[in-house]
Amino acid sequence: MLAFRKFIERYAGLSDTDWQIIQQAFERNEFARNEIILSEGNICKYFYFLEEGLLRYYILQDGNDITKFFTSAPYCFTSKNSFREQKPARESIQALEKTVVWQTTLKHTNDLLELKSWNTFTRKFIHEVQSYTEELLLESKTETAERRYEKLMKLYPNLLQKIPLKHLSSFLGIAPQSLSRIRKKIIKKQN
Amino acid sequence: MLAFRKFIERYAGLSDTDWQIIQQAFERNEFARNEIILSEGNICKYFYFLEEGLLRYYILQDGNDITKFFTSAPYCFTSKNSFREQKPARESIQALEKTVVWQTTLKHTNDLLELKSWNTFTRKFIHEVQSYTEELLLESKTETAERRYEKLMKLYPNLLQKIPLKHLSSFLGIAPQSLSRIRKKIIKKQN
Repeated sequence: MLAFRKFIERYAGLSDTDWQIIQQAFERNEFARNEIILSEGNICKYFYFLEEGLLRYYILQDGNDITKFFTSAPYCFTSKNSFREQKPARESIQALEKTVVWQTTLKHTNDLLELKSWNTFTRKFIHEVQSYTEELLLESKTETAERRYEKLMKLYPNLLQKIPLKHLSSFLGIAPQSLSRIRKKIIKKQN
Repeated sequence: MLAFRKFIERYAGLSDTDWQIIQQAFERNEFARNEIILSEGNICKYFYFLEEGLLRYYILQDGNDITKFFTSAPYCFTSKNSFREQKPARESIQALEKTVVWQTTLKHTNDLLELKSWNTFTRKFIHEVQSYTEELLLESKTETAERRYEKLMKLYPNLLQKIPLKHLSSFLGIAPQSLSRIRKKIIKKQN
């Protein structure tokens, strides 16, 4: 749980009193490797801090499993629209490895907004997520799949080995065979 | 300016007192058709309410002008990272038609966060922008350019005539010729 305090403090100052209140609103939970944390169509009941593990957001469309994002610890996550409006989610979330989270309810997150520290944290955090999403959108318009794969490798050097090829390729919007070719090309370049 | 009050009230309750304070923090400004509101490399000094007009966000890459988004009135806008951190913008903003804005500085937006109404408004607004960006990203992975163009037509039926073909096609990530073909196909379908 200390990792969560440190995470919040990246965005906002946090007194011991505020931290006590925040801490009490969260409970610990675990998911096994490949377990589904949220299924499309269900309501996302929690806002989570990802203390340990690696997640994949995906949707099913015409029988295809399409990866939207990956999230690696330490980070916060939820299925935003589903959680905030308590309506069925339009995406699923899967643990790609053993995962430890701290979770809290909508009621609690709303109550916590009264704390200036939590209010500032969530505001800055959502700005960061928005910038990241915008960056991905821009890259999808301007960069080749090869270049985007190289960027991913730089960002998450240890992560890529843990993510199955099919998920990485659907995240990049290309066929698994194309990603295999890109990987071979990059290995060749490195040697 | 009343349009701005109405806009905020879509997201948060607003007392007359709070509205007086908010109103005093903003000043009116106008831009001519095709005028550049912000140039890449400059610092975005303002957070804006777009009362009237139509904007295009774009970047220049390898000599190509690539459209990121369009924003139509009434809506709020800024170049977020540049504005929040007062550092050079990585994008430009252009008025595609005569535009009326209300603008305020970073100092003012930070001071206004003390108002619960403004705090709630900005939180909900950024959530909405984030959802919209995520939706565009997902569509870029899962939908054809034709389908995305049809969705744009539904969302902004009166807008598309005002946007030059080259900007629409770079927004969709396709060649202008491909967009012409798509348009002809859709017109055929409609007849």
